[in-house]
Amino acid sequence: MSGEFIYERRVDYSDTDMGGIVHFSRFFVYMETAEHELLRARGTTIDRTVDGRRISWPRVSASCEYLSPAHYGDVLQVHVRVARHGAKSMTYAFEFFRETELIAKGEMTSVCCIIHPDRAPEPIPIPEWFAQALEAALD
Amino acid sequence: MSGEFIYERRVDYSDTDMGGIVHFSRFFVYMETAEHELLRARGTTIDRTVDGRRISWPRVSASCEYLSPAHYGDVLQVHVRVARHGAKSMTYAFEFFRETELIAKGEMTSVCCIIHPDRAPEPIPIPEWFAQALEAALD
Amino acid sequence: MSGEFIYERRVDYSDTDMGGIVHFSRFFVYMETAEHELLRARGTTIDRTVDGRRISWPRVSASCEYLSPAHYGDVLQVHVRVARHGAKSMTYAFEFFRETELIAKGEMTSVCCIIHPDRAPEPIPIPEWFAQALEAALD
Amino acid sequence: MSGEFIYERRVDYSDTDMGGIVHFSRFFVYMETAEHELLRARGTTIDRTVDGRRISWPRVSASCEYLSPAHYGDVLQVHVRVARHGAKSMTYAFEFFRETELIAKGEMTSVCCIIHPDRAPEPIPIPEWFAQALEAALD
Repeated sequence: MSGEFIYERRVDYSDTDMGGIVHFSRFFVYMETAEHELLRARGTTIDRTVDGRRISWPRVSASCEYLSPAHYGDVLQVHVRVARHGAKSMTYAFEFFRETELIAKGEMTSVCCIIHPDRAPEPIPIPEWFAQALEAALD
Repeated sequence: MSGEFIYERRVDYSDTDMGGIVHFSRFFVYMETAEHELLRARGTTIDRTVDGRRISWPRVSASCEYLSPAHYGDVLQVHVRVARHGAKSMTYAFEFFRETELIAKGEMTSVCCIIHPDRAPEPIPIPEWFAQALEAALD
Repeated sequence: MSGEFIYERRVDYSDTDMGGIVHFSRFFVYMETAEHELLRARGTTIDRTVDGRRISWPRVSASCEYLSPAHYGDVLQVHVRVARHGAKSMTYAFEFFRETELIAKGEMTSVCCIIHPDRAPEPIPIPEWFAQALEAALD
Repeated sequence: MSGEFIYERRVDYSDTDMGGIVHFSRFFVYMETAEHELLRARGTTIDRTVDGRRISWPRVSASCEYLSPAHYGDVLQVHVRVARHGAKSMTYAFEFFRETELIAKGEMTSVCCIIHPDRAPEPIPIPEWFAQALEAALD
């Protein structure tokens, strides 16, 4: 499918909880890693120092719907696409598949920021090099 | 405020990430623990065996909005209340405060299930003992 | 090298802490997954129900020495080998490499147990099918 | 007891795994937080900027022995004491109790370092202010 990236990940034992299924908070880690692998596939990274400024992407919002539990050893395919490309923020949409079964879907919005050592992250317009890398990743 | 429970938690070092702030996925763990402490305050628990049936609460959905980053050592007050009490599911709403500043808010929906050792969780109507404990917790 | 299995893993963003490096507790998760992948490579698994008995491997001890920090995005090669094959327990030794640099080494001992739903794990002699799979994995 | 600090913590649901017990890696997080609370009790902290230099404590080694599993909802008392006070490093020893039962014990060694934004942590002699705070904490 056009504009989509797929990240594959096997569930770790430590991702499970005493309910015998993957702890719901771990889906957010999987989404984050899928987002990062998308960027890595095009030669950029989520945490990058450019012209002496450290750029990173704190979250603004994150959500997930759980349709079917995931289990230890499952191989999950996380499909990621850009849902909205804002001036300073990106929204990614995610779908989790186990083979052909859709087991969860989620969304995350991050804002492009300069990370300062001693004060709050400072939002900035998304740099051109980032936008270009992303576009290429999803072509 | 009526119908609200407050859970207090200090941010662990391991909750932070290289951005110098609490990793966004950890807010979901804080929400879950706040939900559990609410129940514990009234003498029940999220994972309970009643009449030989193990009852637990898999997530249906979870979301969080991040207004301001949390840092190592911060003491967070997580305010939890019932947003919707369904026949088989509960939706809790959460607000995270650091002193008087609202730094995040979230929502989680869980469905009441019998946990079987070898097959998927089975949704059931919320038992009366649970509804009563909850009501008492939030009075 | 004979008798060794190599598991490769990229460091997730969520594995890091505010010190800018991988949190030391995450190395134990990497070790565990390396151990599990070794078994998976030979068609068995760490959590298996055989003849109606659920077999798993609670930890008896775990240790790690940290020689050099690991960072976000690093690809780590985790080398695992059997350090001791006891009657009821296994000790695995681990070495973490980033390219040619040894950055950490560790050891973990687990005991073979039947997992009961409502009481403590029960140690048992290591089953023959496990010993055979392991031997094959490390040949 | 002289020279000892006790940190109390309730096990989170997310600390458990599908074996129905606390995941072994979480004991290292509990140890770390116990170490930090010890320092906090005396008005200092594990990550502190002094004279423009950010001081933190990367791990050199960590180990744990597991005597009895911990479960969801357990309240653990983590006893921490200084096992060795080196020139640049500290070794802490830990004992985990559930009521009167010793369920685990561990040890961690950390080295005092200046944290630089762009290169490896730099070991330094333990500052006097730290040694004094620690001494007071354990009196």
